[in-house]
Amino acid sequence: MSTPSSSPAKPVVVLRPAPQRTDRIFTPAALDSLRDRFTVVDLEKDPAEEALEEVLPDAFAIVGQPDLPAERLAAAGKLRALLNVEGNFFPNVDYATCFERGIHVLGCGPAYAQAVAEYSLALALDLARGISREDRAFRAGQERYVSDGNADAVLLHGSDVGLVGFGNLGRSLNRLLAPFRPTLRVYDPWLPPDVLREHGVLPASLDETLTRSRFVFVLATATDDSLHLIGERELALLPDGARLVLVSRAPVVDYPALLDHVARGRLLAGIDVWPNEPVAADDPARDLDGLVLSAHRAGGIPQAFQAIGDMVLDDLTLLAQGLPPVRMQSAARELVGRYRNRPVS
Amino acid sequence: MSTPSSSPAKPVVVLRPAPQRTDRIFTPAALDSLRDRFTVVDLEKDPAEEALEEVLPDAFAIVGQPDLPAERLAAAGKLRALLNVEGNFFPNVDYATCFERGIHVLGCGPAYAQAVAEYSLALALDLARGISREDRAFRAGQERYVSDGNADAVLLHGSDVGLVGFGNLGRSLNRLLAPFRPTLRVYDPWLPPDVLREHGVLPASLDETLTRSRFVFVLATATDDSLHLIGERELALLPDGARLVLVSRAPVVDYPALLDHVARGRLLAGIDVWPNEPVAADDPARDLDGLVLSAHRAGGIPQAFQAIGDMVLDDLTLLAQGLPPVRMQSAARELVGRYRNRPVS
Amino acid sequence: MSTPSSSPAKPVVVLRPAPQRTDRIFTPAALDSLRDRFTVVDLEKDPAEEALEEVLPDAFAIVGQPDLPAERLAAAGKLRALLNVEGNFFPNVDYATCFERGIHVLGCGPAYAQAVAEYSLALALDLARGISREDRAFRAGQERYVSDGNADAVLLHGSDVGLVGFGNLGRSLNRLLAPFRPTLRVYDPWLPPDVLREHGVLPASLDETLTRSRFVFVLATATDDSLHLIGERELALLPDGARLVLVSRAPVVDYPALLDHVARGRLLAGIDVWPNEPVAADDPARDLDGLVLSAHRAGGIPQAFQAIGDMVLDDLTLLAQGLPPVRMQSAARELVGRYRNRPVS
Amino acid sequence: MSTPSSSPAKPVVVLRPAPQRTDRIFTPAALDSLRDRFTVVDLEKDPAEEALEEVLPDAFAIVGQPDLPAERLAAAGKLRALLNVEGNFFPNVDYATCFERGIHVLGCGPAYAQAVAEYSLALALDLARGISREDRAFRAGQERYVSDGNADAVLLHGSDVGLVGFGNLGRSLNRLLAPFRPTLRVYDPWLPPDVLREHGVLPASLDETLTRSRFVFVLATATDDSLHLIGERELALLPDGARLVLVSRAPVVDYPALLDHVARGRLLAGIDVWPNEPVAADDPARDLDGLVLSAHRAGGIPQAFQAIGDMVLDDLTLLAQGLPPVRMQSAARELVGRYRNRPVS
Repeated sequence: MSTPSSSPAKPVVVLRPAPQRTDRIFTPAALDSLRDRFTVVDLEKDPAEEALEEVLPDAFAIVGQPDLPAERLAAAGKLRALLNVEGNFFPNVDYATCFERGIHVLGCGPAYAQAVAEYSLALALDLARGISREDRAFRAGQERYVSDGNADAVLLHGSDVGLVGFGNLGRSLNRLLAPFRPTLRVYDPWLPPDVLREHGVLPASLDETLTRSRFVFVLATATDDSLHLIGERELALLPDGARLVLVSRAPVVDYPALLDHVARGRLLAGIDVWPNEPVAADDPARDLDGLVLSAHRAGGIPQAFQAIGDMVLDDLTLLAQGLPPVRMQSAARELVGRYRNRPVS
Repeated sequence: MSTPSSSPAKPVVVLRPAPQRTDRIFTPAALDSLRDRFTVVDLEKDPAEEALEEVLPDAFAIVGQPDLPAERLAAAGKLRALLNVEGNFFPNVDYATCFERGIHVLGCGPAYAQAVAEYSLALALDLARGISREDRAFRAGQERYVSDGNADAVLLHGSDVGLVGFGNLGRSLNRLLAPFRPTLRVYDPWLPPDVLREHGVLPASLDETLTRSRFVFVLATATDDSLHLIGERELALLPDGARLVLVSRAPVVDYPALLDHVARGRLLAGIDVWPNEPVAADDPARDLDGLVLSAHRAGGIPQAFQAIGDMVLDDLTLLAQGLPPVRMQSAARELVGRYRNRPVS
Repeated sequence: MSTPSSSPAKPVVVLRPAPQRTDRIFTPAALDSLRDRFTVVDLEKDPAEEALEEVLPDAFAIVGQPDLPAERLAAAGKLRALLNVEGNFFPNVDYATCFERGIHVLGCGPAYAQAVAEYSLALALDLARGISREDRAFRAGQERYVSDGNADAVLLHGSDVGLVGFGNLGRSLNRLLAPFRPTLRVYDPWLPPDVLREHGVLPASLDETLTRSRFVFVLATATDDSLHLIGERELALLPDGARLVLVSRAPVVDYPALLDHVARGRLLAGIDVWPNEPVAADDPARDLDGLVLSAHRAGGIPQAFQAIGDMVLDDLTLLAQGLPPVRMQSAARELVGRYRNRPVS
Repeated sequence: MSTPSSSPAKPVVVLRPAPQRTDRIFTPAALDSLRDRFTVVDLEKDPAEEALEEVLPDAFAIVGQPDLPAERLAAAGKLRALLNVEGNFFPNVDYATCFERGIHVLGCGPAYAQAVAEYSLALALDLARGISREDRAFRAGQERYVSDGNADAVLLHGSDVGLVGFGNLGRSLNRLLAPFRPTLRVYDPWLPPDVLREHGVLPASLDETLTRSRFVFVLATATDDSLHLIGERELALLPDGARLVLVSRAPVVDYPALLDHVARGRLLAGIDVWPNEPVAADDPARDLDGLVLSAHRAGGIPQAFQAIGDMVLDDLTLLAQGLPPVRMQSAARELVGRYRNRPVS
């Protein structure tokens, strides 16, 4: 069934997934299918720039996020798609040329959305009920039974919930929140209000979202505009006892200000992303009772990684049939240059 | 606002909520409404048996769970309803006489269902992603970033989930689980399969439920039949790496056997109810990394308590209008004698 | 496999389903199971009162709605359940005695709920889009293409919808309406507002429900209180162009007033129940373009009838095991005497 | 309110909506907003080619579907978006140049999806229950009461349902069908199976979809590949008594074969699109009892038209801010040349 790799008919797919790993994103079965349908040039073990440059003229698609300035793209005359498997778009690609040439620029963000949404809900429910705090107390022999440990416990059901940002992650989270029947306010300056209404949520300003929400999920990506979007002024808008979940990008929040509110007992927070990772050994956050501490774990789970490989395989297969990709996310030419993310190491 | 007790028109409602408390289940507004619509005889501060016996002949309804043997019921000729606000039915009431006389026997279980369902989901998500375990590691300076701490992390989405028991709690939990699109198997020997199918879940035997589920929620109430329903044999059926959530009644599970599976790393478990509460200071459970420890906190939160008062007020109001109660749960004459619960202290 | 009917161990179930029919409610498989588990005394073909009276002393349950005055119940000392398979409770049974004796009085209303809910939605969508009206025009060679026939066409999505009554049927319909994201107001005087809120609908007065709804579903059962609940005054509250669906009981609506509003083009209506059935040959309703005419067809479909038999079998099986019934609806002692329904012939 | 067209700061938007109409797609408020934010050049009343050509060099966006061959696009140096408000992409635009130049090619299909989905459900429920057929019988004095008219009535709940095509419409319909808990099989050769599974439906071949479905919705668009996709062989696969709903494009189905199956009583069908419109006066379809006849009315309702205008306004506003459009559908360069639709007159 499998065609020999010398067959000229099969499009050439270049694998250079670093810092992602081939064996993490492709199951053996998926990799077999990939090799079956394409001529796979695997450069994972060959980081030399020359190796990449040599194969560019034949490449139908590149899986990975290598540097692709204008001159390299010029050499890649057959290139139809660039499949980013890291999760962020960096400024190491001449995206303008890609869009001009009709090269699909695809991101793997959707592969992480469910994992991050479940994690965000887990953090919110932990903050709602004091799960990890009381587990620690129990282990220290200081557990409080029944209602004694529940003074600040609240239901998610029927509560006021705010989302800051409504991309893939916000939509996945919205689905998980639906049976809790929240009043859900969303701030997203990139979306017209009717798009939000179609998803059953209330469009709101940032201030209204913060002022009225008991639970706030910060899901905004990092751009120049979103740097410290949630600063001291915004944190002060949150009602006493509000629970804040931060799972997207650390720069969106003024970190010292947030820690201060938590230390004073005014807010509870679940934090998965940090201004500096690893976090300093003496960071005061490590001792705050009102935090749930998490080490950038929201998205990077085995099933999410494998979803990337499955999406890559599906979309490459569609592209080879002359059909548009449907699983990865097409980068918007208007946005791809705005992101200010660092690679996850 | 309150009408004097001499008004003959208003039905007499006796309050003896112990071990529950009036000010915990009734908001001031709810209590005002209650006093407005009924002649309230408040015996919370008067635990004398004589006080209760004195008011019985006039009582339209009793809010609480005092001893009501046949002779007391015989003296309560106008009694129309008994509203249990503790959560369990104890054998201190002559239920047979209640049913014969058409006295409504109502339980407040539905008031706790949402709180316990949210807590159960919180425990399951914690076990799925290691939330409290990694929070502890972070506080100890041993956090693992990104995928390093996610080796055993799994999605709830699309997973095989088993429910043991499908009463109020199971139904509430089923609603919360729906957007995760699980394959949901349910074992409940009191329900015909079509009832389960109508709720969109798969009827299954206990063994099939355990054998095929990555997440198992033990929601069964304690009866003679359910004692150690989940014993060593049953625990051994669970697949490696399964997550078990126990939030209903401790006697349903063989506790030492469960701890053994967790200690061996075969299972992860979230435990909210214990064979003996408080748990012994030297109980080995306190040190098990594979546990999330919780001190009987799933249901007793402020909003659940207030829901009890709201339900009591609503149903008393309906009963006084000659309408059937709709918010509390009518005890089934076939089941009320089967429960083997201890009061929560 | 089947035990002979002489076996003393099997409880005696009496079948007298008229005007319902055994072969309509029981599939052959269900009837086999019933005969397997019970000693079935089939009186369908034996309408003599003596036949019934003869078996009463042994009867564990009666499937049907025969006359059961006090003296007959007195003779039925082992009777545990009365399973109505017609759909309405008539005053031919001494219900008070049933409740005193703890005899379950069960109704089959839930078996019809899905069928009636789907039919109600079908009528509403027909009225929204003119399906049957334009089908008639097409057959007459007068079809209007594309937007020409759509001047009064409206979406159900996002519209204001009112339900008058929120029992089994209202709840089933609410589930079907959910993905249309309506603003759903409900008037039901037998239910406290919080019950409605728990179902995600807005409690409202009758007047508010009518005044603000583009679609109104009249689902109220017939009682002394609901006679002409929707009269001329109430119909006049409906906004111009409102669509009214009547599927419960004709006496709830002032029929001439409704026809007048439809004739004037102010309202559109789908009517399944009529003050007199069969409807007179010269009834003006037959010619009204603004009506969808239906001959009491909403509930009585083959799958609904078979659901009755399945429910009967399931609940009898539970009762024989000492468990409470869960599929049929337990009659409320407060309500069973209030219904003013006629048998469906 | 409107700024004079001399203002250089506001981007120029050309309106040439024919055969669509400006006053049908824009509410007065929407048109005011459009004129407020843009310099609107309204060519609706000026069909001369010269008028269009004159404004092209300044055009930021064109709302409509005028001919735009390469030479015209060459003259439109500032053009950023082409907003089709008719619903179909015709071969009168040099799409390749648009994609090369990064000109957004946007379609208004999503504006119709909800209207068509509701209509499709209306037709399916009519076929399930004989709504229009029995309405006709009632008007002819031949109504059949209760179960007499329900011999072939079926529930949608729990049934096997097939969708042929899963684009905007299929997704909207899938949401409406969810509370019916169908077993939903989908055939869509443009989508990988996992995309379908993510929507909770079963990927299936066309043959399996047809063979196992009681209800089939034909939602496929017209391409060379889909011509007579449902021919005699495929229709013969459908089970007896199946209900077929055709709302997308007539060429997808072999029309004489379909009518033959309906005439023989083997299938029931709701047809909204016809091989020739208007349908011939003597077309035998007009007399078939097993049809619900509809004159291309599924999508073109006032609310759908206004949704187009709202989407146009929202996306133009985003584009003017340098953000990507989110409400209309971006044409896929791989597909835009494949459609074989005729304009709706």
